[in-house]
Amino acid sequence: MTESWEARAREKREAVLALISKEWRIENPPVDKQVDVTGKYVQQFLTEREVEVTETTAEEIVKYTASGQWHAEEVTRAFCHRAALAHQLLHCLHEIFFDAAIADAKALDEYYAKHKKPIGPLHGLPVSLKDQFHVKGVETTMGYVGWIGTFEGKTGTGKEKVFESEMVRELRNSGAVMFCKTAVPHTLMTGETVNNIIGYTLNPKNRNLSCGGSSGGEGALIGIRGSPMGFGTDIGGSIRIPAGFNGLYGIRPSGGRMPYEGMANSMDGQNSVLSVVGPLATSIPSLRLAIKALLAQKPWLHDPLVHEIPWRDEQEREIHELTGGVASDTNKTGKLSFGVFRTDGLCNPQPPIRRAMDIMVEALQNLGHEMIEWKPPMYKALHDEGMKTWDFDGGTDVKADFALSGEPMSDQVKRFASLDKEYSASEIAGINVKLRRLKKEYMEYWNSSEQLTSTGRPVDAIISPLAPFPAARRNMYKYIGYSTWVNFLDYTSVVVPVTNVDKSVDKVDEGYQPIDETDKLVQESYDPEIYDGAHVSLQLVGRRLQEERMLAIAEYVAKAIGK
Amino acid sequence: MTESWEARAREKREAVLALISKEWRIENPPVDKQVDVTGKYVQQFLTEREVEVTETTAEEIVKYTASGQWHAEEVTRAFCHRAALAHQLLHCLHEIFFDAAIADAKALDEYYAKHKKPIGPLHGLPVSLKDQFHVKGVETTMGYVGWIGTFEGKTGTGKEKVFESEMVRELRNSGAVMFCKTAVPHTLMTGETVNNIIGYTLNPKNRNLSCGGSSGGEGALIGIRGSPMGFGTDIGGSIRIPAGFNGLYGIRPSGGRMPYEGMANSMDGQNSVLSVVGPLATSIPSLRLAIKALLAQKPWLHDPLVHEIPWRDEQEREIHELTGGVASDTNKTGKLSFGVFRTDGLCNPQPPIRRAMDIMVEALQNLGHEMIEWKPPMYKALHDEGMKTWDFDGGTDVKADFALSGEPMSDQVKRFASLDKEYSASEIAGINVKLRRLKKEYMEYWNSSEQLTSTGRPVDAIISPLAPFPAARRNMYKYIGYSTWVNFLDYTSVVVPVTNVDKSVDKVDEGYQPIDETDKLVQESYDPEIYDGAHVSLQLVGRRLQEERMLAIAEYVAKAIGK
Repeated sequence: MTESWEARAREKREAVLALISKEWRIENPPVDKQVDVTGKYVQQFLTEREVEVTETTAEEIVKYTASGQWHAEEVTRAFCHRAALAHQLLHCLHEIFFDAAIADAKALDEYYAKHKKPIGPLHGLPVSLKDQFHVKGVETTMGYVGWIGTFEGKTGTGKEKVFESEMVRELRNSGAVMFCKTAVPHTLMTGETVNNIIGYTLNPKNRNLSCGGSSGGEGALIGIRGSPMGFGTDIGGSIRIPAGFNGLYGIRPSGGRMPYEGMANSMDGQNSVLSVVGPLATSIPSLRLAIKALLAQKPWLHDPLVHEIPWRDEQEREIHELTGGVASDTNKTGKLSFGVFRTDGLCNPQPPIRRAMDIMVEALQNLGHEMIEWKPPMYKALHDEGMKTWDFDGGTDVKADFALSGEPMSDQVKRFASLDKEYSASEIAGINVKLRRLKKEYMEYWNSSEQLTSTGRPVDAIISPLAPFPAARRNMYKYIGYSTWVNFLDYTSVVVPVTNVDKSVDKVDEGYQPIDETDKLVQESYDPEIYDGAHVSLQLVGRRLQEERMLAIAEYVAKAIGK
Repeated sequence: MTESWEARAREKREAVLALISKEWRIENPPVDKQVDVTGKYVQQFLTEREVEVTETTAEEIVKYTASGQWHAEEVTRAFCHRAALAHQLLHCLHEIFFDAAIADAKALDEYYAKHKKPIGPLHGLPVSLKDQFHVKGVETTMGYVGWIGTFEGKTGTGKEKVFESEMVRELRNSGAVMFCKTAVPHTLMTGETVNNIIGYTLNPKNRNLSCGGSSGGEGALIGIRGSPMGFGTDIGGSIRIPAGFNGLYGIRPSGGRMPYEGMANSMDGQNSVLSVVGPLATSIPSLRLAIKALLAQKPWLHDPLVHEIPWRDEQEREIHELTGGVASDTNKTGKLSFGVFRTDGLCNPQPPIRRAMDIMVEALQNLGHEMIEWKPPMYKALHDEGMKTWDFDGGTDVKADFALSGEPMSDQVKRFASLDKEYSASEIAGINVKLRRLKKEYMEYWNSSEQLTSTGRPVDAIISPLAPFPAARRNMYKYIGYSTWVNFLDYTSVVVPVTNVDKSVDKVDEGYQPIDETDKLVQESYDPEIYDGAHVSLQLVGRRLQEERMLAIAEYVAKAIGK
């Protein structure tokens, strides 16, 4: 191709925009004129019925569609409309396939009319996908200009616009309607969403801020209710960060629970810390719905890395028995204990995060639950060793993807350009051994908390920030430690929205003494005026492969804090 | 140390031998005078009661010890005696700790006398361990002279003779009595057992032949009934080969089922194809006992790589329902289907293996089960890519272990000396991606067998050789493909003994046209006179993490062939 990367990026950007019909076009007001585009702002462009449909949770939607009360087509059209508005306000979509979605929805309605039953547990549910999923009829660019018109940067593979990722097949089998693919940062390796095709994706609740990343398009889209549920991936926080920044629920399952088979990726084949795939949504029951639906498809028969672990009701039941179902119930039969990870000691959370920690801790203490200070001594070593895995190939993979078009790296990922050395097999093996030992140490630290609780059990979950800020400001994502430790341990983590920044309460720390230059930059990036209104979220972290338990705990905690 | 490696090896060898008391010493007849030292031969040195105890399966032993009918001390002493004989005839032990074992057994008997119940499901069961396990009071040399007097080649670690591997802790908790550690080939990376400390470990049934490797000491020891059950590891066949060569049952569980935490290893940190740990024993119920006992210890709380998958009765039940329990039962309610992997096309099995395949296939067909020809087209690619993982570090790790003492590599592992290049991170990632794709292709090949069976299911298991020969002759282990494919797929495999070589039946193929030089060497190594009487075994291979199903199938098959 002789075209410049700029021209190719512009053409792609315009081609996607052109898929939004005239009647769904709106003006995009300047950010300073309209910081928050959620709620009333976006609702003005929708019918009352569209607002009703799109502000229903995924779990509720399928109750209506699976009983024939709502038609898949109507639901799909409403979300397509709202997603179109979202994209114009936030730049959150890489691929639009509303027509295919509406055709799929019609087919589902026909199926229902004929058989008087849903095709599966996600019957008629619109689902958005991070632009790592391959879906027939559309491209996967992953934000790389050089991937436009190719299959993962290659041509003539026979897979272009035909191949579908395994999870897409399973979602279709379950009755889901895929309708768009969402923006990612090129490389996937940053907590902001920026690339040369789509530009910078904004946070709908506060457009001064990032929507997060790398599943940032998902966060922004679901945050503005342009999708009821979507799937992202997480190798260092990429599901949890966008969920948290946009006031959503999200789960990072442990590796081997959900099928990653057949998805595009960065640095594919780096096997020391694996990326995982999981849902983001507007309620915990919606996350549970997604995971149960996929497990019902027996992904272990179609993805060699998935373990045969069907949904475990008994794990949920254990938690329900300890909490009496939900916090509002009065037949409370036991208590939980939580590790409270207020700071990792390397970078302190900003004031709104600290307030969110207090809210959650106090709400749970008021319900009789127990709090244990959480200070794992191997944390820094884990962080230092784990981060090396991102640099194993010396940037070889991502540099090749940029080289395809000659496009430049955004500031957020420029560090890859400065890498120049590949790790050797021995070096990688050495880090793998260290990481395994650190996992063992962390495990024993967790086990040892049994001595500190009154429940006879080690702590049931850890309450932790997922980032030191409610959301990053542009190019100010300077510390990733609060999300990555979970990946390095392969733990299960559920993000829960807690509150919103209130500039009258969340003041800047006067006379704060920063730990180091990074901490200084993070603390200085907090400005109550700029952050006002932003979502503030936390994560609840459980051990490995504890998806059922952690969803049950997170649901309980969310209710305890009034969500 | 200024001593020569020869002197250090000799001292260690003599120190181990010196732990065998005078009254247990015997003459070791020349191999040509006494080829088979099992059965009557070894029994002559034992009391009737010792023979009775040591020829009881592990599963039966614990029925007696757990009910107080047999004392742990008597059982332990009997196996110590027989193990001492085994070592003198076969060179199968690296560490002897009979005194500690007898003390442990006495403590168990005291516990039983006091509490009138066993301490756990393995109460009073002697268990042998491959010399990768760390056990307090003794060393781990893994066959390296340079590891003598160290912890994994290092001194001053504070772990020397104190640290115990996680599984040892769990075995102790279950009531097992550890009494010896068994020989391995230095590097662990060959199917024969040879090192400069212990020499060459022989096959008790036919001392012309290898006991197998790398868990070869286990195979020899249990083969002569010097232990009722032991644990080996398997990265390319190292549990299955010794089990098969010695007429034993053995299971290679999939990764993440059994705890490997805290064991010594070769090329530790190579994460592309992981070594796994599992039991060898004289019956399938004994293997089941071992795995159930360990899972009851919740190893997922103590080994970060173990998945939380408790023992699944329902998986066994599924198979029982299809087979009517056991072959001898008459209420057969369904049928199984098997893939029959007669040859991998790269190296053909020798005549006795082909006869064993016929025996198993015919027995199952006579019971109404279904046979499907198994020819996975991606087999060679899987073999080629998988084998590269052994060379990732260019021999760096094992060369360093030889360099500690200056000892030479045995012929069986000399290939490591010729390696001179480490793979880079990108190269490793590329192979990881290829291996994942090949696993997916194999999985779909397996899925597609649903079209060929009449059961409505894909095949339930694959019947496969585990090696092209009943057992290797010395330095003639020239082809490893029949065991390694299982590792590259991380499948579950159970070894079942089928028959013994009969020189009057298992004739040399006249006019055989070899596939290539390797195949020629393998076929030429078969000599009916030399092999006469040797055990002939096969493996039953299931998909990943199918331990319960595969043990149930293997038990059924073993009964079907009259074992």
